[in-house]
This record gives sequence, C-alpha cells and structure tokens, in this order.
Amino acid sequence: ANEALSGPIDAPTGLARLRSVHDSSVGERGTFSLRRARIVIQGDLSDKVSLYLQGDLASAVNAQSSGERREHFFQMRDAYADLFLLDRRLKLRFGQSKVPFGWENLQSSSNRIAIDRADAANSAVPGERDLGVVAYFTPRSVQAIWDRLGRDGQKLFGNYGAIGLGVFNGQGINRTEKNDSLMQVAMVSWPFALDGLGEAFAGQVIEIGAQGMLNRVQPELRSGGVNPVSIAERRVNLHAVLYPAPFGLQAEWSWGRGPEWDPSTQSIASRPLSGGYIQAMARVTNSPLGALMPYARWQHYRGGWKAAINAPRLETNEIELGVEFQPLKELELTLAYARMKRAEADERRAGRAVGDLLRAQLQWNY
Amino acid sequence: ANEALSGPIDAPTGLARLRSVHDSSVGERGTFSLRRARIVIQGDLSDKVSLYLQGDLASAVNAQSSGERREHFFQMRDAYADLFLLDRRLKLRFGQSKVPFGWENLQSSSNRIAIDRADAANSAVPGERDLGVVAYFTPRSVQAIWDRLGRDGQKLFGNYGAIGLGVFNGQGINRTEKNDSLMQVAMVSWPFALDGLGEAFAGQVIEIGAQGMLNRVQPELRSGGVNPVSIAERRVNLHAVLYPAPFGLQAEWSWGRGPEWDPSTQSIASRPLSGGYIQAMARVTNSPLGALMPYARWQHYRGGWKAAINAPRLETNEIELGVEFQPLKELELTLAYARMKRAEADERRAGRAVGDLLRAQLQWNY
Amino acid sequence: ANEALSGPIDAPTGLARLRSVHDSSVGERGTFSLRRARIVIQGDLSDKVSLYLQGDLASAVNAQSSGERREHFFQMRDAYADLFLLDRRLKLRFGQSKVPFGWENLQSSSNRIAIDRADAANSAVPGERDLGVVAYFTPRSVQAIWDRLGRDGQKLFGNYGAIGLGVFNGQGINRTEKNDSLMQVAMVSWPFALDGLGEAFAGQVIEIGAQGMLNRVQPELRSGGVNPVSIAERRVNLHAVLYPAPFGLQAEWSWGRGPEWDPSTQSIASRPLSGGYIQAMARVTNSPLGALMPYARWQHYRGGWKAAINAPRLETNEIELGVEFQPLKELELTLAYARMKRAEADERRAGRAVGDLLRAQLQWNY
Repeated sequence: ANEALSGPIDAPTGLARLRSVHDSSVGERGTFSLRRARIVIQGDLSDKVSLYLQGDLASAVNAQSSGERREHFFQMRDAYADLFLLDRRLKLRFGQSKVPFGWENLQSSSNRIAIDRADAANSAVPGERDLGVVAYFTPRSVQAIWDRLGRDGQKLFGNYGAIGLGVFNGQGINRTEKNDSLMQVAMVSWPFALDGLGEAFAGQVIEIGAQGMLNRVQPELRSGGVNPVSIAERRVNLHAVLYPAPFGLQAEWSWGRGPEWDPSTQSIASRPLSGGYIQAMARVTNSPLGALMPYARWQHYRGGWKAAINAPRLETNEIELGVEFQPLKELELTLAYARMKRAEADERRAGRAVGDLLRAQLQWNY
Repeated sequence: ANEALSGPIDAPTGLARLRSVHDSSVGERGTFSLRRARIVIQGDLSDKVSLYLQGDLASAVNAQSSGERREHFFQMRDAYADLFLLDRRLKLRFGQSKVPFGWENLQSSSNRIAIDRADAANSAVPGERDLGVVAYFTPRSVQAIWDRLGRDGQKLFGNYGAIGLGVFNGQGINRTEKNDSLMQVAMVSWPFALDGLGEAFAGQVIEIGAQGMLNRVQPELRSGGVNPVSIAERRVNLHAVLYPAPFGLQAEWSWGRGPEWDPSTQSIASRPLSGGYIQAMARVTNSPLGALMPYARWQHYRGGWKAAINAPRLETNEIELGVEFQPLKELELTLAYARMKRAEADERRAGRAVGDLLRAQLQWNY
Repeated sequence: ANEALSGPIDAPTGLARLRSVHDSSVGERGTFSLRRARIVIQGDLSDKVSLYLQGDLASAVNAQSSGERREHFFQMRDAYADLFLLDRRLKLRFGQSKVPFGWENLQSSSNRIAIDRADAANSAVPGERDLGVVAYFTPRSVQAIWDRLGRDGQKLFGNYGAIGLGVFNGQGINRTEKNDSLMQVAMVSWPFALDGLGEAFAGQVIEIGAQGMLNRVQPELRSGGVNPVSIAERRVNLHAVLYPAPFGLQAEWSWGRGPEWDPSTQSIASRPLSGGYIQAMARVTNSPLGALMPYARWQHYRGGWKAAINAPRLETNEIELGVEFQPLKELELTLAYARMKRAEADERRAGRAVGDLLRAQLQWNY
C-alpha cells in the first residue's frame, strides 16, 4: 500500500479545461491532494485458503453539504478469498479483485513507474476491480522466472498468474450490478528468459501476453439512473515488457468496441475504440541519490470512457518524461513532465485541451 | 466475521416484484453480491474492561452519481465497551451493540444456518443493533451448559447473557435519534439439560426464553425527513431451541403493535403485528463432504417494517429447504431453495409476489 | 483513541434553538450519541520514517434516505508520514494532520478536560486538520521539560514541537481544495520550569506561546457549491498554561479577520473576529474515587464560523463547571454543567438562545 501527495500542479492552458480521468487534481485549482491511503488486512486461514481485504481511506462521498463532496471515507478496493489447488499452481479467487485485463492494470500503483495508468487498457476496467470469480494458473517454469526477477528487484505485475480466466459482474468497481449478463475475461502473460541468445542477453527477460473481454454494461446517465439498455463491449489487449537490465521497454495496445456517447443521436452506443502506450525506461540501482528510474512514455487513445456519466469519448495524446528516485527505502519521489492533449470526460464539452504539466508525487511504501 | 458471496439467483416470477428486506439481491438483476465483509477490532483493556469494534466494508452510500449508489463503504456495526462485575457474571455494555430481542437476532450470521433471519422478530430491530446501555447476567449453572454446548460445536446465540435489560435510542442502527424517549428491552433465555430424563435424552439441551420491548419510533417518510409524531411500538417474543444432537428444532413467535402504513389515511399508525418461524435441522458431523446440516424452515409475518420508508406492511409466507456444507474448516457453502410469497416493502405497490429461489452462499470464517 | 457516550441532555430553553457547533447532540432530541470511535494504525518504517493513520468510525453521511443522514461511517482524521532529521529534533510531516494553530486545538480530545474545545481558536481550524506539509522543531531543553511533565501524568498538548511552520490547502478537513493559495501557519509554544523562583514554585511549569495564520478560503453556500471568491483570513492566537500542580490555569485568546455572513449585503465578507477562554483546574491524584480534576471555564467569541454553510456569525458566552473522574485507568467520566448563551450557526436565525446544560460523557482510553 502507499500514500501519495501530488505536489504543485500547473493551471490549465489552452481553450477547454485540461482534465484527466486518472488524476482529479489535474487542472483543478488546488495544491496538495491525497491520492491513496490504503489499508490492507490479509491472512492465511490454512495452507489452502487465504483472505485479502484492501480499502482506501481517500474515497470521496458526493452530495454532502450544498452539493459539495466530502473526502477521505474508507471504501473497499479488494475483498477476496483464495483457494489454492494443485500444489498452489492453481488458485480460485472469490470476491472483489482485479480483473485480469491489461498488464499495467494488474500491476500495483506502488510498482508502476509512471504517475497514472494509460487510458486505453484502463478504459476496460476503470478502478481495475470487479466482483466475481477468477482462476489463475502458473506453471512452475514461469514461476521460477518471476521469482528470479523479483529477487532482482524488478517491478513485476504482481501475484496473479500466467493464465487467468474469470467471470465478473461487469458494471465496475463498487457499483450495483444492473443486468444478468456476466463479464468474461481471459488473460495470458508469459515471460521468456533470453539468456540462451548469447552474452548480450544475459539476465534479460521479455514477457508477452494477450487478454480478451466480453461484457454488457449500463453506463450512468446525466438524466439520472443508468442506461436502460445494456451496451455490448468486447476488447483485445496485447502487451510486451522487456524488464530493464538496465534498459527496458514496455508497450500495450487495445482494440475493440465499447459504450460511447454519440452526439448525433444524443445517446450511448457501442462504438470502436483503440489505443495504447509505448514506454522506455532505465534502471540505475546505485546513483548518489539512491535507486533512480528515468522513463519516457507516449500514449494514445480514441474511444469511450464507460465509468463517467454518459460514457463520453476520450481523445488522448500524451508524452510523459519522468524520473523516480528512492532516497530512502520507504520513500519514493516521482517527478514528471507531461504534454497532454485531451478531451474532457464530459459529453457537454467539445474540443481538446492542450497543456504542460509538472507533477511531484511522494509515496510511502510499507 | 465472514465474507459471503451470494451466487446465481433466479429472476422474479409472478405479478409484482419479488423482493426481500433481508437480501437486496433477491429479485434484483445481478449475479454476484458481497453481503458482508466484516472487520473486527477487540481487546481487553484490563480484567474488568474490554472494547469491541465491528464494521462492515459492504455498506452502500446513496445518491452518488446521477442518483446511483456506490457500494462497499465501511460502516460501524458494533462499538461498545464492556465492564465486567460480580466475577464476570454481570456485564454492563455501553455503546452500539445488539438489542436483546429475538434469539435469532442475537445469533451471529456466521452461526445461523438459514440464509436470512426471519421477518417477524427481525422487524423489531432491523440491523439488530442500537445505541444504548445494556446489562447482561449469566448464573454459573447456565454458563456451564453453554460452555458444554460450545465445546460440542453447537451454534449458540453468542456471548450475551441469560438475562438482559437495556435502554437504547430506539430509532435503529446508524440513524440519528429523533426523540427523547428510550427503547426499553428485557430478555431471558434459559437452557435446560435433559440428561436426567433418561437414556434417550442424554446430551440433549432445550433452551427457552422470552423478550419484551417498549419503544417510540419515527419512521422515515417518502415526502422527506421523519414522521413528525413518534409511533408507539410494543412487542413480545418467545423462543424455544432444541439443539441438534443430531435432530433439532427451533421456533420463535412475536406479537405486538408497531408502525405500519395505513393506506386509507395515507399515514403511519401503530397497528398489530405477529409472526414467527419453525425450523427443523439435523447435524451430520462426519459425512464424506465434511460437516453437513440440512434444514427446513417455515415462516410467517403480518405487520409493518419500520426501517423502510413509510413503514410498509409486509405479508410474508415462506418455506426454505437448504443444506450447509463445511468442506474445509474455513469455508461454509449454503445451498437453499425457497418458495416465497411476499409483499414488497414499498407502500406504493399492492399485492404479493410468489417466487421460487435458488441461492448459493459462500462464507469464509476466520 | 477514545469512545464517548454523551448522556442525558436538557431540552432547549429560551427563544431560539440552543445549538453548539462542537456537539451536535446539544439541543437535539435524543439521548445517547457516539461522539468519537477512533481507530489508529501507526508504525515506524525505519529510524527516520514513521506513518500514522487515524480514522473515525462515527462520521455521518448525508442525504441517504428521504434526505436523512446515516451515522457511523469511517472517515479519515489523520494520514501522515513523518521524516525525522537532526537526531529527531526536527520532523517534516507530509499529509493530513493537525494545523498548529491553538494550544487546545493541538491537544487531543482524550487529554482535554473540558467536554468541547472553545469556539474562538477552533473557528480557525474546525476539525483541527488539513492537508499539507509542516515542520516541527523541538530543542533538547524543551523536550526535557515536556518529558518530565509527561512522566508526572500532566495532560500535554501532544507530540508536536516547540516551533512549527506549515503550509496547508486551507479549505478544511476532508474538503476538496478550491483555490491555488496556501494556508500559511506559524506556531511557537515554550515551557518554562519555575523551580528557580523558590520553594513555592517547585515542580511548577508555565508554557506560553503564539500562533499566526494567513489563508484564503471559500465557504460553502446555501445556494449550492462554494463562494466564487476566496475570502481573506488572518489570525493571531496567544496561549498560556500553568500546569496543575495541584492548581492550574489555562487561557487562550484570538484576534483577526475571517469569513462571516453579512446580513445587509446577503453575502460573505472578511470581518473582524475575537475571543478566547480562561480555565482554572485542579488535579487531585488520590481521591477515594480515583484521580479527579475539577475545572471551571469561561469563554467568549464574536466572529464567523467558516465551516458552516454561509459562514454564519457566532456570538458565544459560556460558563462551564465540571469534574473529570478516573475510577478505572481505562475509563474517564466527565460531568459538566454549562450556562450557554449562543447564536445558532445558521444565518437564517437571528438572536441568541440561553440554556443550562447538564452533560455526562464516558470515555474509554486505550
């Protein structure tokens, strides 16, 4: 878990308002904000069963005083029980947990180098979690490679599996399910050790994979309630990660269809979407300032954002340059410059805003 | 504490909507739901004082986006301090805790075999808890019988007392009190070991008891706020439990008056209520599937439901057949079939809906 | 952390309604209320870094059913990380924490003798906390005096510093920041051991200090949202405390300007404010009833209350006589009589209500 303060933020530039669906402090007037304050309770009930509860003490509750919200209530993120089978190679996960769609979606925010997740894959699962049942399988050979990377201090995508198959409600994290259809998700992520390719590749690992999703969802309407008809959603996502040793590359791309506001009919329809990101990063383990990871990322997305009212269309182009320091083991400081060109997630506002942003994020790891 | 996922649920059948005041997923479109995710903090401050805090991470907050609710906020269930006196035979409990009215109301959900509590006694204390002061007394002879049953693995009603006397706000769990009057409650529950009656009764225990309540309450109105006048409520409840060894019986019945919507005057009045349940169950401790408890229950209720807006009248007839498995010590699976005939808890909808329901509930104990 | 039940409370007397901005149960119909149920998670991540999370399980959420609120949700109070420097004499605190303005504001409620904080200094920081960065410095000589007082069982203002300098969002605890300006705060609190003044002063300590604040704030409006213009706020507060050995005195006084509703223009303006309190108390460590602290306090305040809708003017005169018992180490009982003359914190109600109040508060310490 982590606690993060996003520091000084520039005011909007350009015509429309500069906003991000990931970071509510972008473009808002304000200085400090708490993005996450996570509390985790976990325990093994036996060799075969473990429980995991995670909540966030930085969730806002709307409509509290004169329509104003109040910050910092405690809301569930994860609440699942794992049942381990086949000598722990297979686990069944029951409850609210991450949906296995998108490598960066599965990676925890404390491990991610960039400040926000990229729009494209995250548009499939805003908040990353849903309520359901999912099975994860990891062969011993894959686990061995991940264990080696973990000991080496690499930032993995976390304790999921090489293969995942799940069914979820599909309406989104902490929302009331509105239809009988289930979201079906399949995922594979496979690491390959490149040592065999010669000296130059000693210790290098590349991980590639793909995910697919079928869902029907009813976005919330500005006129109140949810869309009376469920909208079809289907997506594919590909990812490839070369772990930084010392130079790394990471890329994901999504294609599909999903709910998007159609201004001509003034209603939500299932429309095409696509996008992704490419990221280059380096890992300097012994600088005078402690561990240090410079990175550069370009991202692109065209498609709806189903978690916002009326599922507005996003049109994102963004370049981010940043560096993550670790002066103390418990403390991570990220400084990032971004040039954003974004449509606001509000179907009533047309056009795209362009802005330069400087962000500082302090994160405590424990 | 426990976490429960209610599994596949049938769609409504019959004319009106099939809903239950206990399980919001009955009749709703949706597949998975988290009914409880409880977190407990407790500790003895000394020999004489202990604290208990319990919250639920599955509480919804309404009116969040386009009038839609958000799920899974953390809300208090219990928050009390116990002061032990007379060699721990007497305890004074200060704070929010269970109201000693109804044997099944006091029994924790993780110990209950049936999926929901029965309507009649629960209509006295929806949510089972209130803010106040209550004294519990247990003579040594009674404690000895309960200790013996506990060691035997029987599902008791919990760590309350043989005799309880309390005063509470009386407006209901987590609601703001609206009047100066106090809810007064008295309870007795006495176990009798039947060993003396001969061979056939060796190890058998029957527990009988009664509760009484006096209260004035102001239900919430559809037009906003609460009823300007407090409505008189008075109830008596009787219970009898033959602990399953291996066959058991359990029954409760309530009579009284309480708030109920009167369609002729279009207002809430104090009207008669009555109802209860009879349950038969068996306890198979060593089946090939682990411990196993089949049960059958019939329930009946006619009267108001004060916790719902405008205190609508319920007219419930229900038969439930089910079985609880315990394949692992930490995991309980309940499968239940119910034939429900229920009025919806909404004074704007007349008639009763009939439906057949199949429910699966997974529960993790820790 | 503590849990408190406020006991029997008188009904309003006088013309207007008798209300207190500190204790929502004053003047309300109702008997028992839970004022605080705090849960703390803290830990040292290393010699140099520690984390502190505190939430309250007694926070209400509004607009839940027919406009009625629901009680007892879990909301953040503190969430900060400390970075210790200069052999722990200097600490940098990042996150949501107490604003160093007002000695009694910094003192924890479990240490305060009086039931509520006084209006004047608390009007600067209702809820006492905000999001920001603050540096605290404590010289060794000052720390030695505080350590001596702590061992002696005195109720200090807590683990802050002799000198504090901070910047905060300035909109108030758990509120969304609305402007780019920062609240700037400076604090000094210095204890002087009086042993050198002769026999009569052996063991006596006096602590004096001052605080200053500059801020711009946008109070919430009854018409919805927040004031479009930020209102200037600037304040100075002085404090002096003679620790009770066995007789003590404590006083604070504030002057400044801040947001206040102007009935003539029907808008919020920056207007003068002033007020404070004088308290006398005694410390009887070995009475037959356990530790015992009788106290008397007089308070006065004229000025706006920025945390309430439309920043209404308060006009407070109050005398409180009380006594705090500690029959068990874990349990504190406070009985207090107050004669209040107060304007209600509602710009639509004119005049001042006068009332006599008897309050009982039970508090569990752990």
